[in-house]
Amino acid sequence: MRREIVWLVGVLAIVLAEDNYLFETKYIDVPLDHFSFTQDTKFKLRYLINDTYHEEGGPIFFYTGNEGDIKNFARNTGFMYDIAPQFSALLVFVEHRYYGESLPFGNQSYSSIDKLGYLSSQQALADFVYVIEALQEQYAYNKREKNLPVIAFGGSYGGMLSSWIRMKYPSSVLGAISSSAPIWQLGGLTSCEIFNRITTSVYASFGTDKCTNGITNVWKAIRSFTKTPEGKANLTSTWNLCSPIKTQADVDQLIDWAAEVLVNMAMANYPYPNSFLVNLPAYPVREFCNKLNSHKWNEEYGLLVAVVDALGIYTNYTKTAKCNNINVTSPSVSDEGWNFQSCTDMIMPMCSESSDMFENTDWNFQQYSDTCYKQFKVRPRNLNVPLLEYGGKAIEAASNIVFSNGLLDPWSGGGVLGNINDRVRAIIIPNGAHHYDLRGKNDLDTDDVKYARNFHVRKIKEWLREYYRDPQVNVI
Amino acid sequence: MRREIVWLVGVLAIVLAEDNYLFETKYIDVPLDHFSFTQDTKFKLRYLINDTYHEEGGPIFFYTGNEGDIKNFARNTGFMYDIAPQFSALLVFVEHRYYGESLPFGNQSYSSIDKLGYLSSQQALADFVYVIEALQEQYAYNKREKNLPVIAFGGSYGGMLSSWIRMKYPSSVLGAISSSAPIWQLGGLTSCEIFNRITTSVYASFGTDKCTNGITNVWKAIRSFTKTPEGKANLTSTWNLCSPIKTQADVDQLIDWAAEVLVNMAMANYPYPNSFLVNLPAYPVREFCNKLNSHKWNEEYGLLVAVVDALGIYTNYTKTAKCNNINVTSPSVSDEGWNFQSCTDMIMPMCSESSDMFENTDWNFQQYSDTCYKQFKVRPRNLNVPLLEYGGKAIEAASNIVFSNGLLDPWSGGGVLGNINDRVRAIIIPNGAHHYDLRGKNDLDTDDVKYARNFHVRKIKEWLREYYRDPQVNVI
Repeated sequence: MRREIVWLVGVLAIVLAEDNYLFETKYIDVPLDHFSFTQDTKFKLRYLINDTYHEEGGPIFFYTGNEGDIKNFARNTGFMYDIAPQFSALLVFVEHRYYGESLPFGNQSYSSIDKLGYLSSQQALADFVYVIEALQEQYAYNKREKNLPVIAFGGSYGGMLSSWIRMKYPSSVLGAISSSAPIWQLGGLTSCEIFNRITTSVYASFGTDKCTNGITNVWKAIRSFTKTPEGKANLTSTWNLCSPIKTQADVDQLIDWAAEVLVNMAMANYPYPNSFLVNLPAYPVREFCNKLNSHKWNEEYGLLVAVVDALGIYTNYTKTAKCNNINVTSPSVSDEGWNFQSCTDMIMPMCSESSDMFENTDWNFQQYSDTCYKQFKVRPRNLNVPLLEYGGKAIEAASNIVFSNGLLDPWSGGGVLGNINDRVRAIIIPNGAHHYDLRGKNDLDTDDVKYARNFHVRKIKEWLREYYRDPQVNVI
Repeated sequence: MRREIVWLVGVLAIVLAEDNYLFETKYIDVPLDHFSFTQDTKFKLRYLINDTYHEEGGPIFFYTGNEGDIKNFARNTGFMYDIAPQFSALLVFVEHRYYGESLPFGNQSYSSIDKLGYLSSQQALADFVYVIEALQEQYAYNKREKNLPVIAFGGSYGGMLSSWIRMKYPSSVLGAISSSAPIWQLGGLTSCEIFNRITTSVYASFGTDKCTNGITNVWKAIRSFTKTPEGKANLTSTWNLCSPIKTQADVDQLIDWAAEVLVNMAMANYPYPNSFLVNLPAYPVREFCNKLNSHKWNEEYGLLVAVVDALGIYTNYTKTAKCNNINVTSPSVSDEGWNFQSCTDMIMPMCSESSDMFENTDWNFQQYSDTCYKQFKVRPRNLNVPLLEYGGKAIEAASNIVFSNGLLDPWSGGGVLGNINDRVRAIIIPNGAHHYDLRGKNDLDTDDVKYARNFHVRKIKEWLREYYRDPQVNVI
């Protein structure tokens, strides 16, 4: 089970269609190591900027980039573009180090731990603060009241970063909209099975018991069917795989892939066709279950045929795929970076129990650690480390953050679902999938996401009102 | 002018007499680099602990160590011992990395920038948080309500750290008593001449105009008198110097030394004899001025004789010094670490103007940077860096901090002298010198320091009451 990868796939590999979200690409030299002085190395961090709507004194809307190419996030965070005009906001999207083009050592960045080791959330946050400072220098017109107010936005891991940058650097960032940010998935704060349980309930509510039963049974069917070389060959053909499955590891990989596809459909289960992960119809989970349920099966092979047909909703919606590549669930994915982060501080224990539709898997820290060591020559630190750094559940000293979560999002289980205090608010989008509220507006939007977006706007206005009332105290 | 060193001297070199402050010495392995993963190195950090007063559920009183041997700070922070019984508190004093015995690379720790570069305030704060976590594991008896509340204490740079650890790690630290912490001396937030102006006013108020005039004129007298080799030899003899002054650099050094001694007397200008820096009488500034004023001088030489006699209040109060060593203003000083920190992030611009009693000196960043590069092969980053990291003047998002400052303390100019909000309070000790309130109680204590200590106790009680009322929200 590689659920830590699924998430990456989810937020990273966005097929780009929305070219109406314009920006200019820029680069800034940032220190490789913000916290020590053993070296003075800098590298080029990429950021995207749009000052079309910006007027003097207007805020900076600052997207804290996730684990992927920043352009994809800019093009899938239409909400910031939608509300920029009413705030006269400067739009900025900053790439996370070690992703996209922001590679400190070029194509050698991942080659060894002494290069890759500077990939950490703390360093990334310090990069962002560094960029904010540079923007202030450039855009703060009235030098007496130097700083423009900065509102951070982010979804998923980017949402975690947007909440953390407000917690850690409140003088640089006035407030944060943190969408679908599973900050409590870290370090075992949330039971490891919740992710898969939520995914299952999404399939149950958009499909029927027949749908979840089919999925529940398909894993055993795959394992049983592929026991022999002939079975493996047969499944390779039935499932139209690009490379034949030959070993037990291949079978494991096939199962991981199919599970990831199912999770991705839940994450992208929006009410309109979208290209968030791949090209998908509206409510792909419903489509999947409809397709699955349209089949009849009373034995292994029938179920296998039904499932791969239904998976086609995801794998071949555009009818252009030649075969199924079980190493990829979304194009242009490079998940090595997130895997590394999952092996260092961003450890999110995952497991699967008999109450969900996935194969049973335990959370085994030692095994996880061994895998990490094999891949990166690092072992995760104590699970508590990220909790110490970012406060775990004890975040009541924070302020000016909105945590939003869609209840159809498997990641919502690790999210902040209740208000922390008057100034750290949680908002629920019952019909929302993964950071739905950050997407641009759409005619088919549900009422709850509209409400959430209005809530964000209201909160940002409150923070800004307070800031403008007494800007002096916010001046560095 | 090396005012950045003066401070170190001030807080570091404490002559130890107070052996009634008992503790046990322990060590803990902490990561060398908390923010990157290029290596997995750990080193032994020293801490001192006293659980005599601790009872189940009682708080941890946690001293965030300064730039020096932690034992000296434990022995000069009697306030924590004085109030521990009423709180049933566990007392802990944690050494700052690269000082005392907490040397990551042993006696090679300062040998090159690739070793010394891990000396930074951020790494030190992360060390402290790491120690807190280990203490929680060991001392939190009731595992359901896991964490014991932690109150951070610190004076001077340690006070800066105690306020910052609350700002940056509020889930680990409930509140902070930050005494004489010049967090606004950083990065040019405070005019560079204020430090010397306050020092001057202390001499004016404890002495007379004659005293400050004498000091104001002595610098020119030294320079004029030492123009010739004969003059240098004559002053060496008159001032009983351990090594003869021979060069212009020696003369500069002599002036720096004398200025540092004057500043140190202001910092340790307590109402009772003390051994904070060296053995000193009560109100050493008054004694200095009395002694100086007892002389008559109408020419250069007479003034030089008068000043060195008066400096004897500091340099030879115990009548045991054989000669004056102008390289040292306090025994057991090792200021290399603080010099390094002053050359990286802890840059505190200092200068002297005609309105104070010191020689005029400009603040020259380029020259400062060049000196740093010569000594350590580092240059200070942009002055704004520490402001970005710790918020500069924009700290209104913080909570549960008391900033205390004695107005007789030269460092108070860079301190927080007014309330920031309801939960970040400032308290002034009009007759107080450098972190006077953290010292153990004394029969000769002034009323204002008693008031300040009571204020600290009241605030700590408030924070604890709130914590115990709803401990669940504070559990990681």
